[in-house]
Amino acid sequence: MPELRQDPLSGRWVVIATGRAKRPEAFVPPNRPTGLPPYAAECPFCPGNEAATPPEVLAHRPSGGRPDDGNWTLRVVPNKFAAFDGADGWTEEPVASILEQRSPAYGTAEVIIETRRHDRTLSLATDAEVATVLDCYVQRYQALSERPGYAYLMPFRNYGSYAGASQDHPHSQIIAMPSIPPAVELELSRSRHYHDAHGRCLLCDVVRREREVGERIVADDGDFVVIAPYASRSPFELMLLPAEHGLDFATLGPAEIERMAAVLGRTMRMLDRALHDPPYNYYLHTLPPGSSGDAHQASYHWHLTILPRLTQMAGFELGSGTLINITLPEAAAAFLRAHA
Amino acid sequence: MPELRQDPLSGRWVVIATGRAKRPEAFVPPNRPTGLPPYAAECPFCPGNEAATPPEVLAHRPSGGRPDDGNWTLRVVPNKFAAFDGADGWTEEPVASILEQRSPAYGTAEVIIETRRHDRTLSLATDAEVATVLDCYVQRYQALSERPGYAYLMPFRNYGSYAGASQDHPHSQIIAMPSIPPAVELELSRSRHYHDAHGRCLLCDVVRREREVGERIVADDGDFVVIAPYASRSPFELMLLPAEHGLDFATLGPAEIERMAAVLGRTMRMLDRALHDPPYNYYLHTLPPGSSGDAHQASYHWHLTILPRLTQMAGFELGSGTLINITLPEAAAAFLRAHA
Repeated sequence: MPELRQDPLSGRWVVIATGRAKRPEAFVPPNRPTGLPPYAAECPFCPGNEAATPPEVLAHRPSGGRPDDGNWTLRVVPNKFAAFDGADGWTEEPVASILEQRSPAYGTAEVIIETRRHDRTLSLATDAEVATVLDCYVQRYQALSERPGYAYLMPFRNYGSYAGASQDHPHSQIIAMPSIPPAVELELSRSRHYHDAHGRCLLCDVVRREREVGERIVADDGDFVVIAPYASRSPFELMLLPAEHGLDFATLGPAEIERMAAVLGRTMRMLDRALHDPPYNYYLHTLPPGSSGDAHQASYHWHLTILPRLTQMAGFELGSGTLINITLPEAAAAFLRAHA
Repeated sequence: MPELRQDPLSGRWVVIATGRAKRPEAFVPPNRPTGLPPYAAECPFCPGNEAATPPEVLAHRPSGGRPDDGNWTLRVVPNKFAAFDGADGWTEEPVASILEQRSPAYGTAEVIIETRRHDRTLSLATDAEVATVLDCYVQRYQALSERPGYAYLMPFRNYGSYAGASQDHPHSQIIAMPSIPPAVELELSRSRHYHDAHGRCLLCDVVRREREVGERIVADDGDFVVIAPYASRSPFELMLLPAEHGLDFATLGPAEIERMAAVLGRTMRMLDRALHDPPYNYYLHTLPPGSSGDAHQASYHWHLTILPRLTQMAGFELGSGTLINITLPEAAAAFLRAHA
């Protein structure tokens, strides 16, 4: 019989519909970007095409060079099609009707071009290359969080057109927003209530419980743990988080980034091997900037959520707000471990 | 500059990112099911294959026949792969950990096979055929709502594999659930608060305002209105609703169903013509069964939400809970009207 499971962090109830469960082997991901060339002349993120993007805001040029020349190994540029934009010119018009509330989507969107190589995505990168990408998240996070007016910043990655990526070239994004988004607000609030009720951090308890249960753990190097969450909303959802309480991703030092990169790289390779290079999204949730002194926020625990895109939301999910997952998280974790 | 708009019914803020807006003409829907044959031997919903489904719970046999024979024009069967299931046998095990809350996904899922014809989807059906489908929603809604234990029932339709349909044969579904789902709970609560604050129904006011503004109206026959909601969450989202206050879809009489069918059929043909037979989902939100006497619920207004599936959620949406719509609702409505 299908069962409802509640995700303790978001409060989300998910139907685990084992009746229609596919065996993990049965997923054949659609539209996967196979056989990319190492260089694509028309790609705006490939070296030599720097003029196709806005001027860079950061770049690695270990062998020297000038801004926006082709001699880089990693490059960060503003998103040409920003969903949040810091441009002036918004006139705060009076709202015409209470039924038409609106506000400026003030913010910034940046693209992190992770490598020169068009075909070198995270599952093919060395641990050191993955660490360079994570370090760049920290750098841009810190730089952007010092600007006024941003209530939240979120690094994320879209891989494959089925996961909403409009470019094949390996890249991540970071968006700075004018308010804490609803998904994070909910997690902050639930973490706080859990802490008030139990005197402990919710995700610290989740790590403890998952280590006790064992069957949903995908990787655990002692410092970083990867789990298939108890109420995974879709097949092969994963959460990577520090085993010890970690309030703020942006305070990670080089040694921690190196260890996280090793675990993330390993996870990416497991997904690649087990599910044949699946499309996926990941995003990072951490404490909102400037709130580390806020006692109410001290209960939060940063984490990276990875969502392979193997199924499609349909009318039931869209209409009810309740998601259906056709694969047991325990089976997904076992299948991934078998591809370690 | 992109703007944030708030949907008054759900409270959802949506980024209308006009900077990356596609012109309505630019949508080329993926995976659309073109050129279906009128009959498919391997289709479990085609006549002659009745044994491929569980025994029917309702059927139209205008020329007579016996249950589960091939002589039907519409047929309702239990969903073989039900996400909610009324089967006994759930043992209420004690929850092992507060981090592992679970409960039975008690309920029922039925499939409404709308027509004998494998290729005759709603945009190709006559108004009378559409009315037969809507009438069947009412019949099954009423029958299921009399059973104990169901807190909510939702008719919905998935069209095209990109919209999560696993069968091409024209069909709808109705799912009965053990609790009011979160998306509906939110709308009920916001409708109630609006009514408390303004003494009027929220969606009645929306209809009034949309008629005043005009530019987001797609169809309006006096009784039923189709709008592109102010804060549409994705391109070409539509809402069909009664212009006069309508609390409960399941109380519609034959004359109202006929008028609604004409407007729904017209809307389906507009979408087909304008967007070349796009994949879509629709779902119906109405008052929970048994609550029509509840004063707190009297402010609700039933509606059918139609979501063409032309874009993909990506990491930002999944991680923030804030959706990005790249098409202005006003432009979408104008484009559809041009294809009336």
